[in-house]
Amino acid sequence: MSIGNVAADLVSGESSVERLVRAVSGDMAQVNNLILEMAGSNVELIPEVANHLVSSGGKRLRPMLTLASAKLFDFDGTDHVKLAASVEFMHTATLLHDDVVDDSAVRRGKPAARVIWGNQASVLVGDYLLGQAFKMMVEAGSLECLRILSNASAVIAEGEVLQLSGAKSLANGEAHYMAVIEAKTAALFSAATEVGPVIAGQPAAIQEAMRQYGLNLGLAFQLIDDVLDYSGNAAELGKDTGDDFREGKATLPVLYAYQRGSEADRAFWSRCIEAGEIRDGDLEAAIEKVNGCGAIEDSVKRARDFGAKAVAAIEQVPASPIRDILADVVDFSISRAY
Amino acid sequence: MSIGNVAADLVSGESSVERLVRAVSGDMAQVNNLILEMAGSNVELIPEVANHLVSSGGKRLRPMLTLASAKLFDFDGTDHVKLAASVEFMHTATLLHDDVVDDSAVRRGKPAARVIWGNQASVLVGDYLLGQAFKMMVEAGSLECLRILSNASAVIAEGEVLQLSGAKSLANGEAHYMAVIEAKTAALFSAATEVGPVIAGQPAAIQEAMRQYGLNLGLAFQLIDDVLDYSGNAAELGKDTGDDFREGKATLPVLYAYQRGSEADRAFWSRCIEAGEIRDGDLEAAIEKVNGCGAIEDSVKRARDFGAKAVAAIEQVPASPIRDILADVVDFSISRAY
Repeated sequence: MSIGNVAADLVSGESSVERLVRAVSGDMAQVNNLILEMAGSNVELIPEVANHLVSSGGKRLRPMLTLASAKLFDFDGTDHVKLAASVEFMHTATLLHDDVVDDSAVRRGKPAARVIWGNQASVLVGDYLLGQAFKMMVEAGSLECLRILSNASAVIAEGEVLQLSGAKSLANGEAHYMAVIEAKTAALFSAATEVGPVIAGQPAAIQEAMRQYGLNLGLAFQLIDDVLDYSGNAAELGKDTGDDFREGKATLPVLYAYQRGSEADRAFWSRCIEAGEIRDGDLEAAIEKVNGCGAIEDSVKRARDFGAKAVAAIEQVPASPIRDILADVVDFSISRAY
Repeated sequence: MSIGNVAADLVSGESSVERLVRAVSGDMAQVNNLILEMAGSNVELIPEVANHLVSSGGKRLRPMLTLASAKLFDFDGTDHVKLAASVEFMHTATLLHDDVVDDSAVRRGKPAARVIWGNQASVLVGDYLLGQAFKMMVEAGSLECLRILSNASAVIAEGEVLQLSGAKSLANGEAHYMAVIEAKTAALFSAATEVGPVIAGQPAAIQEAMRQYGLNLGLAFQLIDDVLDYSGNAAELGKDTGDDFREGKATLPVLYAYQRGSEADRAFWSRCIEAGEIRDGDLEAAIEKVNGCGAIEDSVKRARDFGAKAVAAIEQVPASPIRDILADVVDFSISRAY
């Protein structure tokens, strides 16, 4: 967090995310209502499964970004509410399917839906939410927004498959990792921030700036998420420390630790990540190795680089209080690592 | 099959589906190219999994219906090709997810994708194809078609969840069964035939007639599919006879056999379908029970009733050779049972 932002937060007594929450709170109440309505169905199992995740205390950062990116251009209709709810449903559907794919036990500090209702319900309710997301997009009525969000939908799935096919290989290296996080995380952030200027009728250059803002924010966000898996802060974020490790994901901190390690270290990573043979004490050893070789600092540095690009992108739109909040959200996303 | 249709087939030497294939063959070649193109990806696993199913000899009845329902109104653009490919991708995505949900081993006479590449790849490649389907719909550029198809997408998933939550209960009865097949099968048939008149600029009454045609055709089609699971013809259709039985699906033939059976019969169905305790010889016994009590004939009769509604619906559009072919497709779908 920069000195200026720290000072602003000290004066206001609020973090940048709290300021974002406050700035979009009226619209967000409508988004939350719409989410509850569209997660409904006469088929009881659907709202049961959907609401387990929907009401699990996710930050709803993505729909807030959509609302803010419309508000930034004084959009005064209601379609941004539909688009924001669509974005959150796309995210929720992805989480339901991800947990099936990763055999995850915990999501946001609660048992994953698949643990309670099974993989079958998680797959199908995810499909339902994705269908509902598209219905809301259609109601918003912008073909350009539909283009952006349907493209994100395909890219996200493509990123998940890329991760599945290469996650356990340490040889794929940083380029593969970056391609995965760009597709599976940054694509939805960028769609979330690009649709705002589109419905507000902004020119192509502004649309592109907002796309770049979301893309780079998403990259920074995911890098920090992957750092948190090897740091002590994860528990309070409702995430199991070591999830990525146990699932054999070759995230950037691991790739750095692997590249910088001794021969014994490389054998350790290869056994744990590639062969999936994890023994008692391995997670602690992994955390020590990652933290001992500068992998955390250098991963955070990469996140900062993307964060700087996000800030540079948003500075291309006219100055306003919302713009400042969106710039500060970048710092917040990175400061989660501390 | 009516006498008139039998005579027509005898004269032409072609079945009604073969005539449908011929009527749309030029457009269908474009659909097939588009399907191959859109099933592609730089992530190798995606075309591998997608093409396994895409090239597995499915009849592609749904996209042919879309093409014919546009051609019926002399549509001369290219958007029907995109919509037809979208419809087929929606269907393919559903099959990939269904096989995961049902633990199926075989699809169209080949090992199911999940058996070769695992459930994870099947879930994610299904998601990818659904995203690609929406991209193609957006390219077709009709918000009304997007509304119809996104609604179908949510309804299909809802039907799958309904089936999941009630499939093993014989007490749910016929209404539950009808709701499931309307959602999981007929919704896509009706969307497939409704988008044709929409892009061809037809009035609401014609659009509604084509929706009714597809809906009732879809109901008849699924009823016959469920009949085939207890008849000898299934093997040549690339379907495992007894799949539904082993998966504990309370399809209409089973519901009829249960309702009409002795106390011992009801205990048998309850053990096999509800408790899922299937022993050697049970499938043979089930086939005998279903065939011995008129359940097959009465299920086919239900299919014929829906078929008659489909024919009545399509007779509301102006007469043409394509209209005759579409009417005959109804008979074909039902005659599969023999």
